[in-house]
Amino acid sequence: MSTSKPPIIAIDAMGGDIGLDVTLAAVAHIQKRYHDVRMIVVGDEPAIRSHKSFSAIDAARIDIHHTTQVVAMDEAPANVLRHKTDSSMWKAIELVRDGKAQACVSAGNTGALMASSRYILKMLPGISRPAICAVVPSRGGHVHWLDLGANVEAKPEQLVQFAVMGSELVKAVDEKPNPIVGLLNIGEEAIKGNDMVKETSKLLEKTDLNYSGFVEGNDIFLKEKLDIVVCDGFVGNVALKSVEGIAKYIQTTLEQEFRRNIFSKIAALFSLPVLRRTKARIDPRRYNGATLLGLQGIVIKSHGNADVFAFANAINVARLEITNGIIDHIRCQLDRQQNRPAAEEHTA
Amino acid sequence: MSTSKPPIIAIDAMGGDIGLDVTLAAVAHIQKRYHDVRMIVVGDEPAIRSHKSFSAIDAARIDIHHTTQVVAMDEAPANVLRHKTDSSMWKAIELVRDGKAQACVSAGNTGALMASSRYILKMLPGISRPAICAVVPSRGGHVHWLDLGANVEAKPEQLVQFAVMGSELVKAVDEKPNPIVGLLNIGEEAIKGNDMVKETSKLLEKTDLNYSGFVEGNDIFLKEKLDIVVCDGFVGNVALKSVEGIAKYIQTTLEQEFRRNIFSKIAALFSLPVLRRTKARIDPRRYNGATLLGLQGIVIKSHGNADVFAFANAINVARLEITNGIIDHIRCQLDRQQNRPAAEEHTA
Repeated sequence: MSTSKPPIIAIDAMGGDIGLDVTLAAVAHIQKRYHDVRMIVVGDEPAIRSHKSFSAIDAARIDIHHTTQVVAMDEAPANVLRHKTDSSMWKAIELVRDGKAQACVSAGNTGALMASSRYILKMLPGISRPAICAVVPSRGGHVHWLDLGANVEAKPEQLVQFAVMGSELVKAVDEKPNPIVGLLNIGEEAIKGNDMVKETSKLLEKTDLNYSGFVEGNDIFLKEKLDIVVCDGFVGNVALKSVEGIAKYIQTTLEQEFRRNIFSKIAALFSLPVLRRTKARIDPRRYNGATLLGLQGIVIKSHGNADVFAFANAINVARLEITNGIIDHIRCQLDRQQNRPAAEEHTA
Repeated sequence: MSTSKPPIIAIDAMGGDIGLDVTLAAVAHIQKRYHDVRMIVVGDEPAIRSHKSFSAIDAARIDIHHTTQVVAMDEAPANVLRHKTDSSMWKAIELVRDGKAQACVSAGNTGALMASSRYILKMLPGISRPAICAVVPSRGGHVHWLDLGANVEAKPEQLVQFAVMGSELVKAVDEKPNPIVGLLNIGEEAIKGNDMVKETSKLLEKTDLNYSGFVEGNDIFLKEKLDIVVCDGFVGNVALKSVEGIAKYIQTTLEQEFRRNIFSKIAALFSLPVLRRTKARIDPRRYNGATLLGLQGIVIKSHGNADVFAFANAINVARLEITNGIIDHIRCQLDRQQNRPAAEEHTA
């Protein structure tokens, strides 16, 4: 099992809106914090070695994998599959497939990362497409939420798979033995909702998951006993982005009001520690690093505009998933749900 | 036309989590602010007359319509249609149908209000079900957002109707001649999204609406040039409630941090005016009063837990829609979209 070996993480160093400025500094940051982590920095080797942030990296503890291409943030996935197989994103995923790394992290474009990952790593048995799973803060601590946009539509059976994968992720990463699953709907009463969620709910009740029934949008953040929220990718993506939008709007409004006049500016000085602590608790950078679940390998998607702190968090998510053997756990659980013998027996 | 007559609004006085404590005080509040508004207070007349808030009402400027039943907040719509036809909610809607009032306002349960309104008032020609339209704050001022949960599924043609009705509402209430419509999707690129939104987008381009294309969840709050956001009721309801959830979570977090120690408590004292102004700007009570669009009459839904200020806002929404002749505008525009002669010729 992977749990005893030191984790090796492939970093798509060229990906994201910013690229090397962020990714190399994050590599240095992770090196300082986790001494057993090895990283393979994938990208343009001369550019990497000559970059100002390279000096902060302990070069003895990384490998550099040279690539010549970069996937653009707006590039069509099909174009990447055809013409960008020497890109930093592509090679980082290949390193996972080839067992050279146990996870890869990219801030590159989501569509390209998903398509390339599916093509290179393949899906776990019984899973047709990956689901994007991210962590958001909540009254109970935090919640894992999926799918956040990998699939624009989902069948009830797929939503059940999302619940299974999400549960295994929480068991492994949060060390919760029996995580609570909620199904996102427009009302808690069973009569509400469309046919898809009703059918999914029936299926979820038949599983051995700790399924607590329907939850509403506000429950994601306010319900204390909730670990996993499941929905289709269209709903999840719209809701997550709406949440990001209002949070930004509230922040801007608060800043405007603190800048309004001399009295409010003085109040701002007094309030600085409070505002900083509040911001830290809801800081989306703390929650950066979404997992593409359902692949035969760990792929972590960072926000494209992540800064060093945020990108380092995404690398840390990869580290946690490696050390907790998340892929084996999911594979095993999917096999159980499908009433087949455990994965180990298949692959032995 | 209705614009010259003084507005008459039927108030479901018994509806909502709180009932008379809120509704009667809100009636008094509106009376003080708008001298030309008449209200018909619908509910248990002895209870209304003996209520402590009744003394604040100018009794000469209201009518009381006595009813014996109350619709419970968790009551099934079908039960209301069969057994609650002498309820305050039902009678308030009937007063609109019978021309005694030009709008009704209820904080009662959404499902019952929608089902009763459809049954009593009927839909406008070509509209199959109402859409719930609410106002949310945004960088550009505010945005009208629909559907927020009236329909768990919607066809492209219905989403186009939502856009038409929303546009007419904004034209009438906000006095914007050419309001900008966005279609909620998971990406701005036309290749993204499910078949439903792609088909809707094509249809919207063929209308004479000021359609600006796809918008994402964050755009609702952050895009300056946006007046109407259209989506199906499942997505809208989940996203709106998610937004309410994170806003509440941020507020609680901020309050906790301000209460943390003696220094933060002093900072809170200094910051009180700033926090109050910020809260006022994003206060959901200011935006209370969702319109059930598509009916042959004005029905305004207040939040069930609205307080006096919030419920008075919902009454004011009704007032604005009456004085702007919103139903005639929508009817006329729907007829135009359906390439039929204008409504006035039909009903003349």
